[in-house]
Amino acid sequence: MRIAVDVMGTDYGPKEIVKGAVDAVKAYGCEVVLVGDEEVIKELLVTYHADKNQKITICNASQVITMDEHPAIAVRRKKDASIVVASNLLRKGECDALVSPGSTGAAVTSALFCVGRLPGVDKPCIATTIPSLKGATILLDSGAVVDAKPEHMALNAIMGSVYAEKLFSKKEPSVGLLNIGTEETKGNAQSLALYPLLKELKQINFIGNVEGNDITKGTVDVIVCDAFTGNVALKFGEGLVSTIFTLMKDSIMQGGILAKLGALLIKPALEKMKKHMDVQEYGGALLLGVKAPFMICHGNSKAKSITSAIRMMITLVEQDVVGTISEKIAEVELGNEEIEA
Amino acid sequence: MRIAVDVMGTDYGPKEIVKGAVDAVKAYGCEVVLVGDEEVIKELLVTYHADKNQKITICNASQVITMDEHPAIAVRRKKDASIVVASNLLRKGECDALVSPGSTGAAVTSALFCVGRLPGVDKPCIATTIPSLKGATILLDSGAVVDAKPEHMALNAIMGSVYAEKLFSKKEPSVGLLNIGTEETKGNAQSLALYPLLKELKQINFIGNVEGNDITKGTVDVIVCDAFTGNVALKFGEGLVSTIFTLMKDSIMQGGILAKLGALLIKPALEKMKKHMDVQEYGGALLLGVKAPFMICHGNSKAKSITSAIRMMITLVEQDVVGTISEKIAEVELGNEEIEA
Repeated sequence: MRIAVDVMGTDYGPKEIVKGAVDAVKAYGCEVVLVGDEEVIKELLVTYHADKNQKITICNASQVITMDEHPAIAVRRKKDASIVVASNLLRKGECDALVSPGSTGAAVTSALFCVGRLPGVDKPCIATTIPSLKGATILLDSGAVVDAKPEHMALNAIMGSVYAEKLFSKKEPSVGLLNIGTEETKGNAQSLALYPLLKELKQINFIGNVEGNDITKGTVDVIVCDAFTGNVALKFGEGLVSTIFTLMKDSIMQGGILAKLGALLIKPALEKMKKHMDVQEYGGALLLGVKAPFMICHGNSKAKSITSAIRMMITLVEQDVVGTISEKIAEVELGNEEIEA
Repeated sequence: MRIAVDVMGTDYGPKEIVKGAVDAVKAYGCEVVLVGDEEVIKELLVTYHADKNQKITICNASQVITMDEHPAIAVRRKKDASIVVASNLLRKGECDALVSPGSTGAAVTSALFCVGRLPGVDKPCIATTIPSLKGATILLDSGAVVDAKPEHMALNAIMGSVYAEKLFSKKEPSVGLLNIGTEETKGNAQSLALYPLLKELKQINFIGNVEGNDITKGTVDVIVCDAFTGNVALKFGEGLVSTIFTLMKDSIMQGGILAKLGALLIKPALEKMKKHMDVQEYGGALLLGVKAPFMICHGNSKAKSITSAIRMMITLVEQDVVGTISEKIAEVELGNEEIEA
């Protein structure tokens, strides 16, 4: 198994990405192809004592797409950008999966242009794994398509269900529609049109509407929503967690010697809790609807996220998540044709 | 100043509501009218040693609208429901403001039917105050109108700005549009149509797009969004806070005697932090766009929330929040007519 990793264009530079990839090779025995500036990568491999590791190869790419560039224009113009080169490796089958911590827009565009969509999929979507009380919940679409059509969102539900089945090793994972009330009659025009479509789908275990507080409650495995709502919710969640821990730290700092001693004593328990809630454990978000496993990591990913992302990709390739999604979508497409015929 | 309080139809029953109202009368010296089952209220006033308090009067209402009733049907049929009776007191000017912790749907419907909208306002909205790193942020619409028209949302921005000015005693509070990126070109059809309208409004200090993580960062005073997004975000936030504290407690419980001792030592600091983040400090959400101050509290409000809500209502009546909103909206309406002419 070979995983391509785009090393360039992240917040902390190539060193965290290379370190994470080296750690993954050592831990899981997979092969990785590091895509980016060859000289920089070579030096980093020496630093991490992995320059003689035969499971690690370098694929040079002379250009980088930065976070502030227009994705579609940059992907078209910069033929030798690391994300474009990496996507082409994936297209040609020279690697089995791709991990990209650079610009999300550039990654999605590059996936569409170079890797291509699965037959029957008009609009790919991004599936993010969010830690919950009971494990994790997959939220999709968390960033690809705003004002999504209900029929596209129904396909997202199928893709998310397959992803959950493979990732959580769970038969018939539950799928909910993110809404403002549990009753079938609640919602905006989009969710009201989507509900009956989801109810009819034989490919998913639809449990009806769920609400915002279900996201971390662990009451449902997969939550379907529009990318606008998904993106706002995710960023709100990130901000809220950060606000809570900042306020907690400030209160403890102002609380004198006893509060500080207390903080020291609960530190192991807090670390355990933080590990459970740590999004880095889940590596990144999967781009669903393209022809090969394509993972988008946060631009501020540390080595640990990259290692987790590679671990997840190994599972998803072994479980043939893309093949299974493709079969399920063909079933629906066939169903539609039968109805039309 | 007289504040009407609907005592019926909440999760914890009339006792928390009556206690909160009694505490407010004692703390702030206002008058309250308790609307609901006279016998029940009389007994509770004896319990809280307030049966001889001349600032507290009872207005009997023989019916209750429960959380699971259809709001529009229930408000029309139950003429003697506590929320309907209370709304009529407000309409007739027999009280200056209303606090309602019952069904949100029934409260909004009753406000529309009995109190009525301000001239120029088609759709009222709900403004919720969310604790932030630097104080609080007002999010609106948090629950009234989904698939809102951009022109209605522009009016919401003006109403939210007046509310923030009065509540935070701040001149020209900043107003942001909740979106999935800060650039003007980002967003869904609704936010793309709304952005230029907000940019043109002289009545607000519009700072552009903000993202989900700005909600608790304290970077902006007022955030405008569709009720669908606002409702999902609010419920997600509630769930996330609850999940974090549950996991923290579980980790500490499993962490042995030292972790428990630590938890005891940081308790005062945590309590201080929780007080800052406590939504009960803000009482409830204001229904903006109706002819009198109308506050909707959570169905699970405890006495403290009701006391806070009454305190907020005193400020808002003194500051004439409804009158100021009415003037600002008249300015915009006038502006529109000039353009049309």
